[in-house]
Amino acid sequence: MRKKIAIIVGGCGHKDGSEIHETTMTMLAVAKQGADYQLFAPDREQYHVLNHLTGEVMNEKRNLLIEAARIARGNILPLEKFNVENFDAVIFPGGFGVAKNFFDYALKGVDCQVDTEIASIIKSTHAAQKPIGALCISPVLIAKVIDNVTITIGKDAATASDIQTMGSKNINADYNDVVIDRKNKIFSTPCYMLNVDIAQIAEGAENLVKAILENISSN
Amino acid sequence: MRKKIAIIVGGCGHKDGSEIHETTMTMLAVAKQGADYQLFAPDREQYHVLNHLTGEVMNEKRNLLIEAARIARGNILPLEKFNVENFDAVIFPGGFGVAKNFFDYALKGVDCQVDTEIASIIKSTHAAQKPIGALCISPVLIAKVIDNVTITIGKDAATASDIQTMGSKNINADYNDVVIDRKNKIFSTPCYMLNVDIAQIAEGAENLVKAILENISSN
Repeated sequence: MRKKIAIIVGGCGHKDGSEIHETTMTMLAVAKQGADYQLFAPDREQYHVLNHLTGEVMNEKRNLLIEAARIARGNILPLEKFNVENFDAVIFPGGFGVAKNFFDYALKGVDCQVDTEIASIIKSTHAAQKPIGALCISPVLIAKVIDNVTITIGKDAATASDIQTMGSKNINADYNDVVIDRKNKIFSTPCYMLNVDIAQIAEGAENLVKAILENISSN
Repeated sequence: MRKKIAIIVGGCGHKDGSEIHETTMTMLAVAKQGADYQLFAPDREQYHVLNHLTGEVMNEKRNLLIEAARIARGNILPLEKFNVENFDAVIFPGGFGVAKNFFDYALKGVDCQVDTEIASIIKSTHAAQKPIGALCISPVLIAKVIDNVTITIGKDAATASDIQTMGSKNINADYNDVVIDRKNKIFSTPCYMLNVDIAQIAEGAENLVKAILENISSN
């Protein structure tokens, strides 16, 4: 039977939403390796809208689900439809928007709070002992919800220190590495937390999905 | 010396702009095969904004360059900066938005008109005898600008008939095929003109870029 992976996104674009390359390369990695994916996003307004050319705030409102539907070609569901029983694993692509919309780490640092719906997905997947994958900045989100995990956010010392303050551990890693916390079934890879190109993002996503699918099969 | 490919896009999302998977898979194919890319987009308003969940028109205005910057992570230039002398080839990803923003084929059919700036890029690249790649619906755009070309838009009979009316020829093709017009150096592949998945889009884009890079090297 084909494995089913839930991919959790919100918005469309790394500055105010999910990172597009990390999301499409995760979708590609799942499809190439013979599994199926379903995208989910929160049906609510995103924190803000940024001009991706200039970085300036735009005087607009956009919805995380409607914008993420652009990456999904319309094949996406609101988070409330997520049920861990229907999936073998859950993956969170990155993007700076994750640290504004899923939790407010970009604004509050270690004192950040996690959105209730997002926290609930992470907790239910963890409780079901199913793998959670996290790219780029998303491993910090996992560390904020689950105590004492081992993850990677690449090689950024300040973020690594924040992870330690949250009671978890960062392991420095390169773009093609996957850090695996076998006890908690957390799989992470650095992606654009490093200065890499889109082919290296594809390699990181492919290695992450491979490790997750191997873990599912071995159970 | 590394080959340089210009990728021409506009907007972000297949319904009202460039198709995101076709664009990112083209970027991936170029990077994986050791060439460099530069994205360009028109700095003007897009025809309309569609909700990618429902297909409904949204009462908003968006700019083709600013939205495309989401796919490009900000590394994108306005079309006016394009000079064919700086590139070895030009590629047009698809998306229904191409047939609304680059020319009005989605609205007018065979009587459509091509945007002056876009037509100029196609004409100057053709005149310089450099390869032009086109995915999905974009081969129709090329056929509207250059007479008597041989292209593919997959297997859609109505579109194939329109191409014939425009004085060019469609060859039916599958997702992993590249139709090559050697005289005019036009390279095309069907992508989402067929009912395919993201891994098949990646394969089509990879084959297209491979064929273009081989053509450049053989000159």
